[in-house]
Amino acid sequence: MTEQLIIGVMGGGTATAGDIETAFRLGSLIAEQGWVLLNGGRNSGIMEASARGARGHGGLTVGILPDDNCSRVSEFITIPILTGMGNARNCINVLSSDIVVACPGGAGTLSEIALALKSNKEVILLNFDIGKPFDQYVNEGLLYYAETPEEVIEKIKKISKNY
Amino acid sequence: MTEQLIIGVMGGGTATAGDIETAFRLGSLIAEQGWVLLNGGRNSGIMEASARGARGHGGLTVGILPDDNCSRVSEFITIPILTGMGNARNCINVLSSDIVVACPGGAGTLSEIALALKSNKEVILLNFDIGKPFDQYVNEGLLYYAETPEEVIEKIKKISKNY
Amino acid sequence: MTEQLIIGVMGGGTATAGDIETAFRLGSLIAEQGWVLLNGGRNSGIMEASARGARGHGGLTVGILPDDNCSRVSEFITIPILTGMGNARNCINVLSSDIVVACPGGAGTLSEIALALKSNKEVILLNFDIGKPFDQYVNEGLLYYAETPEEVIEKIKKISKNY
Amino acid sequence: MTEQLIIGVMGGGTATAGDIETAFRLGSLIAEQGWVLLNGGRNSGIMEASARGARGHGGLTVGILPDDNCSRVSEFITIPILTGMGNARNCINVLSSDIVVACPGGAGTLSEIALALKSNKEVILLNFDIGKPFDQYVNEGLLYYAETPEEVIEKIKKISKNY
Repeated sequence: MTEQLIIGVMGGGTATAGDIETAFRLGSLIAEQGWVLLNGGRNSGIMEASARGARGHGGLTVGILPDDNCSRVSEFITIPILTGMGNARNCINVLSSDIVVACPGGAGTLSEIALALKSNKEVILLNFDIGKPFDQYVNEGLLYYAETPEEVIEKIKKISKNY
Repeated sequence: MTEQLIIGVMGGGTATAGDIETAFRLGSLIAEQGWVLLNGGRNSGIMEASARGARGHGGLTVGILPDDNCSRVSEFITIPILTGMGNARNCINVLSSDIVVACPGGAGTLSEIALALKSNKEVILLNFDIGKPFDQYVNEGLLYYAETPEEVIEKIKKISKNY
Repeated sequence: MTEQLIIGVMGGGTATAGDIETAFRLGSLIAEQGWVLLNGGRNSGIMEASARGARGHGGLTVGILPDDNCSRVSEFITIPILTGMGNARNCINVLSSDIVVACPGGAGTLSEIALALKSNKEVILLNFDIGKPFDQYVNEGLLYYAETPEEVIEKIKKISKNY
Repeated sequence: MTEQLIIGVMGGGTATAGDIETAFRLGSLIAEQGWVLLNGGRNSGIMEASARGARGHGGLTVGILPDDNCSRVSEFITIPILTGMGNARNCINVLSSDIVVACPGGAGTLSEIALALKSNKEVILLNFDIGKPFDQYVNEGLLYYAETPEEVIEKIKKISKNY
């Protein structure tokens, strides 16, 4: 692990008002801990909200974009990484995060959860019930459920103490 | 779509004897239809079994490998594509398949199902119940359940008629 | 190495009439040897010409496309691999080829030559003088010059005998 | 372009003492301008030297690694991006840089220069003569030669004024 903890925040490009608010709060708390926030970098949904929260609280934000140009990057991203690789960038998202937090989302978010687990990376689900097919990873201690951003922060502290 | 239908067969690198047998039969039937079988290319689990079935019945098999060398390629792969990209190759698997069939597997297979749906690609689940988080894609007509290889073949014929 | 030799043919998306004719002849000769031809898969320049030559002489052709769809694939490609990764697919081109042949081209082709050499893959330049910065690889016996498609075929036979 | 200029510094994983010193000075000057330095992230050659220079002068450094883990990351990298994609990460290096500077190197560096030019990205060569095959890009005003880090900085200022 590198000196600064990098927390990946995944979630839908479209999201409910409640999930947007939660992602914003999660981003704020991550920044307040001095951690780097990493996400998919686009100007929508959970990506925009979590980056906005982090930047508004003095945080550094890294966005790993599927695009080869900056036309859809969120203005709250400090460092945009342009991959030009479409969804293959989802692998980079999870490999580059010390711990992955997944907010509610669709197939893209589910792919990131699965890719993280495949790489033996810890994943914390925030208000996102993905059910049965992932149960074995809960049992293995790789996949956790949380109900609030504050609970996520506590979980990250506990996990990262073991590094 | 290209002239020859390319059917992606995903599934675990480790698998039960029953799933191995089913994957072998699926590969055989795909070859008998004159379709190309595409999978992850390694010499284990569903990959090896489906390729063995297809090659044993005169089929052409393409393996998209995570590796940058041939040390773990299945001997039943006609064309090994070496990506050197780890799990990012899962995206190529689903983009290059006209239709994706998913046999039982773990996080890697779940990531391929999710990536396929994210790219609006039809996915047929063969004896693989992935439950709730994917239900919306069943409703949208992108995700289908099947119980036998024969049922998969019928479903593929029905879907591909619309191309 | 796999059972069938896979020969990568690189070169410009635009090309002179003479280079097109040479690429067509190279593709024909590759097919006559029973080798698989692999290229960038698009319907233009050296890619289209070499695939057309190979298919016209009974060969199997694999195209590794930068795109995530088939809109620009050459009709002479048997197996289109859709990467959706832009130029990052250039790495896959060279890793998946047992030996790389480079016809004249621009920056894309130069990147493929460099990536092949970086991966310790033999490269044969066909009527393509790339000069000084690559001289060390000629000295190391990784980079060869040839003036005709026939000379390329002889060189491939000599190199592949060592496998 | 994003708010902060991101300068990519490419060059060999092994390098002469003189090139190491020049890369260190280039990194220092980039940091003093308030620009972000991006490179290949490893703990050797031009990568380590340029990152060390930038960090020693208060700069932010981003490393795009070929690896899927941190075992070979330079200690002078603030943000390590783990791609797990081998040389395919070279594409990300150049796409994510507003301007690319290339110090002397081998095939890897040549591939990055070529990939940058292919993406219409300006490249400044620092004491690195790559000769004839790239001459057309000098004529097109995409490729520049410089002899000192100070000259590179002036060139970057001139180019980026046009954004």
